[in-house]
Amino acid sequence: MQLFIGNKNYSTWSLRAWYLLSKFNISFTELQLVLDTPEFYEALKSKFPVQKVPALIDAELIVWDSLAICEYINDAYLNGAAWPSEIAQRAKARSLAAEMHSGFAALRNEMPMNIRANRHVELSEQAKKDIARIDEIFSAQQQSYPNAWLFGEFSIVDAMFAPVVLRFKTYQVELSHAAQAYCQHVLSCPVMQSWISEALKETDIVDCDEAGEEIN
Amino acid sequence: MQLFIGNKNYSTWSLRAWYLLSKFNISFTELQLVLDTPEFYEALKSKFPVQKVPALIDAELIVWDSLAICEYINDAYLNGAAWPSEIAQRAKARSLAAEMHSGFAALRNEMPMNIRANRHVELSEQAKKDIARIDEIFSAQQQSYPNAWLFGEFSIVDAMFAPVVLRFKTYQVELSHAAQAYCQHVLSCPVMQSWISEALKETDIVDCDEAGEEIN
Ligand SMILES: N[C@@H](CCC(=O)N[C@@H](CS)C(=O)NCC(=O)O)C(=O)O
Ligand SMILES: N[C@@H](CCC(=O)N[C@@H](CS)C(=O)NCC(=O)O)C(=O)O
Repeated sequence: MQLFIGNKNYSTWSLRAWYLLSKFNISFTELQLVLDTPEFYEALKSKFPVQKVPALIDAELIVWDSLAICEYINDAYLNGAAWPSEIAQRAKARSLAAEMHSGFAALRNEMPMNIRANRHVELSEQAKKDIARIDEIFSAQQQSYPNAWLFGEFSIVDAMFAPVVLRFKTYQVELSHAAQAYCQHVLSCPVMQSWISEALKETDIVDCDEAGEEIN
Repeated sequence: MQLFIGNKNYSTWSLRAWYLLSKFNISFTELQLVLDTPEFYEALKSKFPVQKVPALIDAELIVWDSLAICEYINDAYLNGAAWPSEIAQRAKARSLAAEMHSGFAALRNEMPMNIRANRHVELSEQAKKDIARIDEIFSAQQQSYPNAWLFGEFSIVDAMFAPVVLRFKTYQVELSHAAQAYCQHVLSCPVMQSWISEALKETDIVDCDEAGEEIN
């Protein structure tokens, strides 16, 4: 199985799929492409209908889009274990994952993932609402599962929200105590630490993802 | 089971969930709210964490977000029948559904669903690319399944793309012959016709969804 990803420093959607595969110990070959280069589009063009990462090849089969890759892996390799096993919890987890997948445009635009940076950005009202909603999600789930993943065990929804945790770190977003506890849980995960340490070694710059003012 | 939806004339995301439930003959109570009114937010506030439609209540359980509702129904009522049964096809269908769920922002902004209108809009380059990509999806699937649903049988991906078919009609978008054949297939579906005829009876106006110049 081959997973095409972008720069670890910047590529939020890549992190989701990579995190799920890595956390569940599924063996795969990582193929890294540098965002915004001719080689990026060249490498994907002959293989996938969309030239975006993440994108997965598993024997004859191709899957693109981070959420679809997570669902495929759950389906083909994990016998459903990547979602909560109880139906009401699974419905809620899927609601949160799909809400993230289709929403939070302001937060995404104004706070690009940029792991190696410490920045200050001025946020729009809509971005502040996005942050408040995510704080509410994290803290409500921490009430049910203190110092644990959003639904107790690691699931697809944690992979979907992982990039946001890193954005909050870069832009030093103030969160409620409970939401902060969830972020700490994610940041202390060894699989996440390995992504972060590889991101820190990267040197390529993607201009459009360099937002805000450096904080010493 | 109660499904909260918005105006049939305008509410793209509502249509997706309603279409899936209706097409699979699952019995539900439809609760319609008028978008952009105080009553809309009031009705949803006490029941759901997000004040958006569609939103579903099934006994003790709540689900919001159109894609999550489709996955929930597939899971709880259809034993998986709302996705293609073959794994490679299912992975592809999920890729397309998730691509739609997270993308096509230009097309969505510039061509709001407005079933009763016939309009002309000037499109950005990005919106034209979005249309070209959808044309490619529809026509590639028509090659495999002529005059049929995207994967032969009706599936979640058809529900996800249904609003786009209606946008193409309102704004009279020129498509390839094969993509047009898919649109015809959708528009001639009796369940879709019933949504359209109810939309045509509505009289409420949502200003932000009224784009373009009326044609004759
Ligand atoms: N909906 C897709 C979006 C993927 C996406 O936009 N990926 C970015 C990198 S994080 C990309 O490949 N951008 C390249 C481009 O748009 O040219 C997913 O969830 O995988
Ligand atoms: N990701 C959600 C989006 C739902 C959504 O934005 N619905 C619109 C109507 S089509 C809405 O309720 N808007 C009300 C608001 O945003 O205030 C889904 O797929 O259901």
